[in-house]
Amino acid sequence: MLVQEYFKTRKNLLEKALDIYLPPAKQYPSQLHEAMRYSIFSGGKRLRPILFFATYEMLIGRKNINRLDRLLPIACAIEFVHTASLIHDDLPSIDDAPERRGNPSCHVKFGEATAILAGDALITKAIELLTEIKTRHIALNCIRIITRAMSTRGMIGGQTVDILSTKKKININTLRYIHLKKTGALLQASMELACAAFDAEENITITLSNFALNLGLAYQIVDDILDEVGNFDILGKEPGEDSRNNKATYSNLIGLEKAKKTAEKLLRDSYNLIKNMKNNDILIEFVNMIKERLP
Amino acid sequence: MLVQEYFKTRKNLLEKALDIYLPPAKQYPSQLHEAMRYSIFSGGKRLRPILFFATYEMLIGRKNINRLDRLLPIACAIEFVHTASLIHDDLPSIDDAPERRGNPSCHVKFGEATAILAGDALITKAIELLTEIKTRHIALNCIRIITRAMSTRGMIGGQTVDILSTKKKININTLRYIHLKKTGALLQASMELACAAFDAEENITITLSNFALNLGLAYQIVDDILDEVGNFDILGKEPGEDSRNNKATYSNLIGLEKAKKTAEKLLRDSYNLIKNMKNNDILIEFVNMIKERLP
Repeated sequence: MLVQEYFKTRKNLLEKALDIYLPPAKQYPSQLHEAMRYSIFSGGKRLRPILFFATYEMLIGRKNINRLDRLLPIACAIEFVHTASLIHDDLPSIDDAPERRGNPSCHVKFGEATAILAGDALITKAIELLTEIKTRHIALNCIRIITRAMSTRGMIGGQTVDILSTKKKININTLRYIHLKKTGALLQASMELACAAFDAEENITITLSNFALNLGLAYQIVDDILDEVGNFDILGKEPGEDSRNNKATYSNLIGLEKAKKTAEKLLRDSYNLIKNMKNNDILIEFVNMIKERLP
Repeated sequence: MLVQEYFKTRKNLLEKALDIYLPPAKQYPSQLHEAMRYSIFSGGKRLRPILFFATYEMLIGRKNINRLDRLLPIACAIEFVHTASLIHDDLPSIDDAPERRGNPSCHVKFGEATAILAGDALITKAIELLTEIKTRHIALNCIRIITRAMSTRGMIGGQTVDILSTKKKININTLRYIHLKKTGALLQASMELACAAFDAEENITITLSNFALNLGLAYQIVDDILDEVGNFDILGKEPGEDSRNNKATYSNLIGLEKAKKTAEKLLRDSYNLIKNMKNNDILIEFVNMIKERLP
């Protein structure tokens, strides 16, 4: 199967499920449900759920889209949590981003109050979905994984340090913490959730979890580099935004060359962690996708 | 046991557990953990966790504080969700409340960004705690109950309609919806959680759930009445606030006398639902506490 075909079919599968699991837009109170749907269907690449599917299909030993049906509550929960974090991060008092993926942010379109509540509602819906998993110990493991990823030890912690660091001099360890928590935690959870759904052995889970953390950090460093030397097409947003927002980046903290070398090493480490696993082609594609963005 | 003694001992038990389950204030990132603790320890009456304890102790047939230890994750989860909703409701774009219980609101003290994230973190922590319950089906039932209470069919839905109704003419059904969802849903969940922890029969759960909804609605109507005719001492806040904020109240929609009669009927209905249950004295006290606030 072509990689593009894999991404396309899994994205379609996910998007149908997102539509089914979200409350209808017309359901009372409709403004809230419209806001949730607006942000969920705003053109996301669905990388986290696809990484989740790919990990699971590697573990079961073959690509079989029919085997993914029972995983849809988990895949949707991942995307709900991701989108909730974007809605809250874009708020005026946090990152103050008027646009997201070329469209008005949720709070610009629906007002701040509704945006805050839509984020809360997506977090809540994510957990509700996970309680629908039939096997109880898997359901509870999934809820543990996703709440840890969101918690003050995960995304919320990373976002807090990010805000408090704006306009301040920070060192590379703090920036690494922000990247690992803000981006890494949910990528890590996506792969751990696949392991939980498969009841994978602990050593496999640990390896894949480390793979995800390296991948997430590499992704952010490449983003930092592109913020300095990229263009709109490759970055998907205006370059130079982080510097303008007084946010530290890897390239301005340790220099462009060293940042590049760090990213390359992380990608090499990621590759090495999974190179001997069978059916690893889609995971390797994730590594390559990031490598190809490197200028 | 004196009722006051019951409330005091259960409140103490709960507050010790809240302190244990919350991340230490000094833990990185400390500003976030300080904000969570600030709002949790800002003088709440802990009515919801106490209602939860009282329901459970009625179901097991005796008051025994030692039997409550295994319920502490649930009791704390209730208070975390309640506090998260207060933090988000107080935000400038929602109710714009600079004070809560006589102290600066979370966002006034720590900034809006941290307040938004502290609310998110408390929701997350609530769910994490519930995964610690040893018996799996009870853990999952509790998570289902609390996420339904928070969802767009519960508190978040009620809060959305409340915001959208401000400065608008609404009818009594809409106001009833707001009160039932904003206040009723979590009171209902508190009693349903006790039933879940006890593995109560369904008819008992339904009865107690209805008791809680009536109680919650009565509480809000009495609050509406006091907003018109009460004083600071009895209300715990300045009267007339709702009218000044252009919020509809029961008394201005159906008149003071009819509002009073509605509250009295709801309290009578509540009482009738539980009057034949054994060991119901603390639940009856909840009914009386609201009755006594009626002017």
